[in-house]
Amino acid sequence: MKILLKNGTILTMAGSEPEIIEGDLGIEDESIAYVGDTPGDFIPDKIIDASKKIIMPGLVNAHTHIAMSLMRHYADDLPFWEWLNDRILPMEEKLTPDDVYTGSLLSIAEMIRSGTTTFADMYFFMDAVAEAVAETGIRANISRGLVFNEAADLKKLDIGVKLFHDWHKKAGGRIHVDLAPHAPYTCGPEYLEHVRKSAEELGAHIHTHLSESRKEIETIYSLYNSSPIAYMEKLGMFRQKTFAAHCVYVSFDDIRILADYDVSVVNNPGSNFKLGNGFAPIPRFLNAGVNVALGTDGPASNNNLNVFEEMNLAALVNKAVHEDSTVVPAYTALQMATINGARALGREDEIGSLEAGKKADIILVDGGKPHFYPNFNPVPALVYAGQSADVDTVICNGRLLMEQGTLCTMNEDDVLAKAEKTSHRLALSS
Amino acid sequence: MKILLKNGTILTMAGSEPEIIEGDLGIEDESIAYVGDTPGDFIPDKIIDASKKIIMPGLVNAHTHIAMSLMRHYADDLPFWEWLNDRILPMEEKLTPDDVYTGSLLSIAEMIRSGTTTFADMYFFMDAVAEAVAETGIRANISRGLVFNEAADLKKLDIGVKLFHDWHKKAGGRIHVDLAPHAPYTCGPEYLEHVRKSAEELGAHIHTHLSESRKEIETIYSLYNSSPIAYMEKLGMFRQKTFAAHCVYVSFDDIRILADYDVSVVNNPGSNFKLGNGFAPIPRFLNAGVNVALGTDGPASNNNLNVFEEMNLAALVNKAVHEDSTVVPAYTALQMATINGARALGREDEIGSLEAGKKADIILVDGGKPHFYPNFNPVPALVYAGQSADVDTVICNGRLLMEQGTLCTMNEDDVLAKAEKTSHRLALSS
Repeated sequence: MKILLKNGTILTMAGSEPEIIEGDLGIEDESIAYVGDTPGDFIPDKIIDASKKIIMPGLVNAHTHIAMSLMRHYADDLPFWEWLNDRILPMEEKLTPDDVYTGSLLSIAEMIRSGTTTFADMYFFMDAVAEAVAETGIRANISRGLVFNEAADLKKLDIGVKLFHDWHKKAGGRIHVDLAPHAPYTCGPEYLEHVRKSAEELGAHIHTHLSESRKEIETIYSLYNSSPIAYMEKLGMFRQKTFAAHCVYVSFDDIRILADYDVSVVNNPGSNFKLGNGFAPIPRFLNAGVNVALGTDGPASNNNLNVFEEMNLAALVNKAVHEDSTVVPAYTALQMATINGARALGREDEIGSLEAGKKADIILVDGGKPHFYPNFNPVPALVYAGQSADVDTVICNGRLLMEQGTLCTMNEDDVLAKAEKTSHRLALSS
Repeated sequence: MKILLKNGTILTMAGSEPEIIEGDLGIEDESIAYVGDTPGDFIPDKIIDASKKIIMPGLVNAHTHIAMSLMRHYADDLPFWEWLNDRILPMEEKLTPDDVYTGSLLSIAEMIRSGTTTFADMYFFMDAVAEAVAETGIRANISRGLVFNEAADLKKLDIGVKLFHDWHKKAGGRIHVDLAPHAPYTCGPEYLEHVRKSAEELGAHIHTHLSESRKEIETIYSLYNSSPIAYMEKLGMFRQKTFAAHCVYVSFDDIRILADYDVSVVNNPGSNFKLGNGFAPIPRFLNAGVNVALGTDGPASNNNLNVFEEMNLAALVNKAVHEDSTVVPAYTALQMATINGARALGREDEIGSLEAGKKADIILVDGGKPHFYPNFNPVPALVYAGQSADVDTVICNGRLLMEQGTLCTMNEDDVLAKAEKTSHRLALSS
């Protein structure tokens, strides 16, 4: 199957400075065949008119818990522990694998609509998430969240390892599986040592939460006289390739550790703000050479899966925190949402930029809306004025997932109706 | 003309707590006839199916400079003075009245699309803005920005006063005219006394900028040994009803002054963040009983006119600043964008909530998108998940300005093409 995206404004995200090419992009099967001028021997099966469209890499949501879409708009503006213990956990306890599948489909519909072609998910009943990914054509890194309860209880780790054997590099290579020790405050050192060993044996990457709240810092200091990041380093966790969500409360020593081990930080501004945690020091990470990606976190604490919004927040809010209108420029926010996300997930050779040979994970953004005018520069226009609804067409692994606003691989009405019914059942029985 | 909005989810914004009514809303000529059940004797000329739609008041953008849309996406991520002096002012100096008209139409197209039915504008060549408002059917408070250069030069004040005589309560009452002393650092005390007297004579309200940046605070202290807000109070400016943009750097004394004089604050989070100014203390204003509205500021420093985004920023970011997930709850953000905006502009008897007898400024938001599911509560859904593109239909003063995504009072293609041409001409000649 050959697809020609004709006559667009191509933002490749391939270099450290914006590269904008007015021209075509050719797709052959799963991959990008060329960027720029269409060769005479490229005979497309399908031509998509990309005039007035910005062609760019699909966005990477590098940290989320997608099935939690079932619990959003249900408990907001509450103190954190009341939100978690009284509202979210009682619903979560009722979840079945089928519910996780239903919530995953709802979230995948939203992600496709908003231009996300890859997400990194940590949750439970992950086979259901994998099935939803396999069916809908999106790309994902999935992992079973590992929370330790008793010394002998390694069952969840077994489930996580089984997930790796069952799904890693499956669904045409679209699915990767990571190991996901939930957080330093939910996993003791012995348990983490088991996780580390398993990850080493499997060659699995680590997806975790680190230094999200002041309370976490206090807890880990009181238990181990160490910051969460230094604690993980001492245990040798970072010898495995790691990407860590949040990293809000970090010292300069912590930042040095992240840089030394090439640990990727996944910034989740929407969730960090909504839960009242605070501001991760993004310019400091960037100055230290730390790779910073973007995530939405779970949609119950956001309340959406909109990476355009996270780009906007990252670019705007860091300027206010640092009282400097030059930090986190628009192109940096776009890098965070594309190539840096790919790098965090260990997939930068496959995705994250538009280059011949990479997988065809591509979105077309409608630059014809009033907020894109005047057409001086698509980079600030996307970050400071764009919104996820501007995404017109989405391609993942060479396959159309949305064309001109219509989802191609899902029956959206059915997905929404089933999610609505499921959520209300969970809420009533909580 | 009678319009029936049938079978929607009506968020009235009429009280201090959310009031949600499942039902109908009737419009007769310019006004809301009823909210809830359709009386038997109401025979509509037009019925709009509002099922799966949230019916709510049109949004109020209480501080902007709309013609600056011509200069957006042109100069971003620069130090403030470089941005202003080297990029924006050279373009601004070239503006003609016709350019201001062109930029105004571009911005009005974007505002209608994003659910704004009223805006407060301060700029120059304001007759051109007024013409654009009159033609397109939107509602506005307009004012000539008054910057003082020489003691004898009261010409701009004359222009501002003439604007009042020419346009106040014109265009079927949709246009109000305010007097707009630009800021304490651009208007000396004698000039402000002239402005104050004119406002008193006319019964005009005051629209101004206050306490936007650290530099402004330093300047006003060095000149007058006073905060900008205390300086304006001493001059008696606040005896006229005033709404003031920004108020980022304020003391507790400043907040008391604002509360005592019922000065409305227009919070512009997007612009304050993008220009690296910082965070206005919104929860402190609210606790002190200060009326807080929302604005985008000019689109060159935002870069859009999207009040949904400002609601989202206000609700999210204040929680992070104060490390408290309960401050600026979603309903408060919605109040800021509707009834508080109406109050700031002195129009709370006309607009800002859906109540029988008020003007029919109404938007229908499409609650059928995935991010609105599950349908537990439209209030957090609108603020934390919604986006401006969810606005489906817009009514102002009883007239349809957009129906199902199509603008009714403008030729959008022509507006965009002319704005594009104008902006590039201005950039080339700068």
